[in-house]
Amino acid sequence: MAQHYKTIGLIGKPNHQGASATISALHNYLLEHKYTVLIENSVASSTANLVIADDVSICSLTEIGEQADLAIVVGGDGYMLGAARVLACFDIGVIGVNRGNLGFLTDLSPDEIIEPLAKILAGESRSEQRFIIEAEVYRHGKLKSSNSAVNEAVLHAGKVASMIEFEVYIDGSFMFSQRSDGLIISTPTGSTAYSMSAGGPILTPNLNALSLVPMFPHTLTSRPIVVDGDSEIKLVLANENQESLQVSCDGHVILAVMPGDEVIIKKSDYTIRLVHPLDHDYFNVLRSKLSWGNKLY
Amino acid sequence: MAQHYKTIGLIGKPNHQGASATISALHNYLLEHKYTVLIENSVASSTANLVIADDVSICSLTEIGEQADLAIVVGGDGYMLGAARVLACFDIGVIGVNRGNLGFLTDLSPDEIIEPLAKILAGESRSEQRFIIEAEVYRHGKLKSSNSAVNEAVLHAGKVASMIEFEVYIDGSFMFSQRSDGLIISTPTGSTAYSMSAGGPILTPNLNALSLVPMFPHTLTSRPIVVDGDSEIKLVLANENQESLQVSCDGHVILAVMPGDEVIIKKSDYTIRLVHPLDHDYFNVLRSKLSWGNKLY
Amino acid sequence: MAQHYKTIGLIGKPNHQGASATISALHNYLLEHKYTVLIENSVASSTANLVIADDVSICSLTEIGEQADLAIVVGGDGYMLGAARVLACFDIGVIGVNRGNLGFLTDLSPDEIIEPLAKILAGESRSEQRFIIEAEVYRHGKLKSSNSAVNEAVLHAGKVASMIEFEVYIDGSFMFSQRSDGLIISTPTGSTAYSMSAGGPILTPNLNALSLVPMFPHTLTSRPIVVDGDSEIKLVLANENQESLQVSCDGHVILAVMPGDEVIIKKSDYTIRLVHPLDHDYFNVLRSKLSWGNKLY
Amino acid sequence: MAQHYKTIGLIGKPNHQGASATISALHNYLLEHKYTVLIENSVASSTANLVIADDVSICSLTEIGEQADLAIVVGGDGYMLGAARVLACFDIGVIGVNRGNLGFLTDLSPDEIIEPLAKILAGESRSEQRFIIEAEVYRHGKLKSSNSAVNEAVLHAGKVASMIEFEVYIDGSFMFSQRSDGLIISTPTGSTAYSMSAGGPILTPNLNALSLVPMFPHTLTSRPIVVDGDSEIKLVLANENQESLQVSCDGHVILAVMPGDEVIIKKSDYTIRLVHPLDHDYFNVLRSKLSWGNKLY
Repeated sequence: MAQHYKTIGLIGKPNHQGASATISALHNYLLEHKYTVLIENSVASSTANLVIADDVSICSLTEIGEQADLAIVVGGDGYMLGAARVLACFDIGVIGVNRGNLGFLTDLSPDEIIEPLAKILAGESRSEQRFIIEAEVYRHGKLKSSNSAVNEAVLHAGKVASMIEFEVYIDGSFMFSQRSDGLIISTPTGSTAYSMSAGGPILTPNLNALSLVPMFPHTLTSRPIVVDGDSEIKLVLANENQESLQVSCDGHVILAVMPGDEVIIKKSDYTIRLVHPLDHDYFNVLRSKLSWGNKLY
Repeated sequence: MAQHYKTIGLIGKPNHQGASATISALHNYLLEHKYTVLIENSVASSTANLVIADDVSICSLTEIGEQADLAIVVGGDGYMLGAARVLACFDIGVIGVNRGNLGFLTDLSPDEIIEPLAKILAGESRSEQRFIIEAEVYRHGKLKSSNSAVNEAVLHAGKVASMIEFEVYIDGSFMFSQRSDGLIISTPTGSTAYSMSAGGPILTPNLNALSLVPMFPHTLTSRPIVVDGDSEIKLVLANENQESLQVSCDGHVILAVMPGDEVIIKKSDYTIRLVHPLDHDYFNVLRSKLSWGNKLY
Repeated sequence: MAQHYKTIGLIGKPNHQGASATISALHNYLLEHKYTVLIENSVASSTANLVIADDVSICSLTEIGEQADLAIVVGGDGYMLGAARVLACFDIGVIGVNRGNLGFLTDLSPDEIIEPLAKILAGESRSEQRFIIEAEVYRHGKLKSSNSAVNEAVLHAGKVASMIEFEVYIDGSFMFSQRSDGLIISTPTGSTAYSMSAGGPILTPNLNALSLVPMFPHTLTSRPIVVDGDSEIKLVLANENQESLQVSCDGHVILAVMPGDEVIIKKSDYTIRLVHPLDHDYFNVLRSKLSWGNKLY
Repeated sequence: MAQHYKTIGLIGKPNHQGASATISALHNYLLEHKYTVLIENSVASSTANLVIADDVSICSLTEIGEQADLAIVVGGDGYMLGAARVLACFDIGVIGVNRGNLGFLTDLSPDEIIEPLAKILAGESRSEQRFIIEAEVYRHGKLKSSNSAVNEAVLHAGKVASMIEFEVYIDGSFMFSQRSDGLIISTPTGSTAYSMSAGGPILTPNLNALSLVPMFPHTLTSRPIVVDGDSEIKLVLANENQESLQVSCDGHVILAVMPGDEVIIKKSDYTIRLVHPLDHDYFNVLRSKLSWGNKLY
């Protein structure tokens, strides 16, 4: 089959036996089939039995983003999030390989990877754009910090069971003020993650929308709200809040927030391009993960 | 002020004292200011103290839709729904006047109507398009019945606490099967009505989306789902269901459904054009109706 | 082993292949081991391959309640509810045999029934009392109808998506009025059934409590409420309700209710005595039915 | 009127203008009517305009518990919690005075306090016992720390959006393991506080029960569970958890918890004796706080 992709980046959860085995298998397969292979350095150094070929480059995630046209990420949805936040800045397709359990972002099984991968490499695949969001913290009108998130940005007090107070504006219009433990702003991609545990709705991946899900709201009439995906969401922290507030992005990167700060959350200029086998079916993943009913006949 | 609108239809909840008084006041004001006035026949015949001027036409809702360029509907959100389902078929602006309590669709107060109305009639207004949906019931591939809905279409067993079983398809792709008391498919307009009582999320009015909200689902992992507003939603009823199923539109119009039938729900070709004063603020209505927090400073 | 129980009633879902097979096997086993056997008449007449021995009595559910000291009910939780409502009036132990899937009330598997049953018949068993409730409808102070319920009594409009209005009193004290599609009053036994689909909490079986769970409440601050099990719950229907209201007991028996009627719900004088194998574990059933996490180590 | 109570302790939120004014008024009224008065030292030193009479003792909360037969606590439900945790250890009645808004524990209004107080002091009152809970942390079988809670004990990771894993045992029987942000164990008194924000049910104050409410559970079938109030609840922390876990009591006192620790939560030997006017009505407080519907006629 013809090579649709030429330069392949291999990325995997370091120090994880299953991920290492998959990385090794992929390394060998890709070289055998004359692909140019790049291996991300942390997985390269932690994969015990991998004899890296001479013409394989060991490089950073950023370098993979710059040089490869396809990245294969091995390691569960959580690990994928971190890689995807970086790779979103580059024009690169991303394939997710899970660690034995079907994931929302990692739909390829490590046990049956070669055949679907061969087809994808030959161009028999579907690309799916997923938008990501950017969270920015402003103090006295100046940008203090920012980060992107694939799943969600969460404003909270840092500590559990600690109430904060803030105003919410949509495209400059005041929507409401709230006292709660925090607020989750989720993408469609994140709607099946932390947002769902908090009672948020599922947004199908192609929906151009963001959901705002309150965390333990003091007002019992608070409800999840879904707004247009191109909205600019502004959170203004009351001056009366305690000192150490936070915005956490995908549960990993934390931005410090102070009373009086403004947090802007909006769609990023970048997107993730997920690459799937032609028979990939998001609804099938959803049914499988949530134990929903299958076809009746 | 110049006349932006020329022919005004007056529509109101029949046999309702407050609505009658408002209709009378509007009738007199509009004639005094040389507008052409049409009055819907059921409110005309039930408004005791109204001396209808000679040059005022008494006509049907459909005739108002055909002839007027603005309809003023007096009577609460529930009454507005019925009028809006009909008026949506015509190129006409619609103003809602509530009966004392702010409504989501009826934002003008009967006590302070003349001033904002005068501005609207002079063209100082904002128009807002709200999409509506069409529910169609197919039996053996043939269309049996259909109706439009402004708020929501609800598939259910007719009887309370009576489980039904059905499959859900989005744009032809199977999403899930479910056993529950039913399923609510809601527009953004309906997201603050019955859907919200069932735990559905709020969708802002400009969002191009539909929500699917399960009613007492047997599977505890069922969740509200928000899909693109241009999706075609197909519900296929299991053959094992009892005989007398229903799709109710806005809680008023009921379509009979049988086991094995298919129900298609999708955006209608028609929309409602709500006309608001320039200072209308949807978020303000939301805060007021749900007792949400106001600005902090 | 000694006979702890002597007269055994066999009850099963009629016209159900699996239930019939289990009934036949139990019939043969019990006769072989010299027990006195009674068979409920509807299952007796619908069990094709069953050659009923001469000394086996075919009788009604009530006669089984009067004459047997143990009833074995074959057929899933739904079928058990109907039998249990009747058997509660008698001093009889009840064993539930499911139809292949573990039930909350039917914990014995039809595939492995003989060994645990032999132990139970020899007295190696645990008895568990479950209280049931009585729903009474009063019109102008006179009792019009009443029925007992094992799981729940539900007040509703009969029709789906149809709001009713009523007041709730606990032991004569006014608690609240509500506009909603209805109210579920659930026992601990019923807390894992319809009440749970409506968002009600799980009450462990030994808890002396009733839960009140609103159905699609108009007021967003409505919440499930748990009250003492010895409380008298009175629901007073507003005069403004439509004509045909209902109280349904376990989803099967329906009591007609009119505007202005009072519905009293309280603990019945009767209880169900469930008989379990010694290794029965309610929490295990709960984990299994709800896919909850098992022991970590 | 005869003195039913003789020695009255005055307790109030320090540095709070409204509370100070109420404390002053109570101080003067009680001395005038020949009661023995004790003032808690932090409010005594922060109440600017209070001229404390010579025969009034300034003392600690503990000394008030030991010496007074009635404590009047001025300051909102949150402040009441802290005082009540200490006073529960003594045989003393407790009256709560709110700061302008009706509270669940502070039902007397500061604006109309003298008349109801006079009646209470003369014995025209109702006493209500509220049980409290004790949380104990065990490491390798040894008690490391413990504290009581009036509202709830919350097990969590300390940090927001940080999953923990633990097993739950009821009276020694394994119930389930869970991955979530934490678990709230609430008394009936606490059921209208943090537990309610997390979706927990309302438990009426006289109910002998505890609720277990999961916080952002990973498993979507997790539900609030209500168990008998005399149950011993044991939480066993998985060894795989991060280091710094916590149990917080009423959101104020924090106990450090490590992976592998056991947390025991059970009813305390102590109770709070709330003293109410004869016309106090818990359901009225509930309706008022939650905007529930009043009597219909």
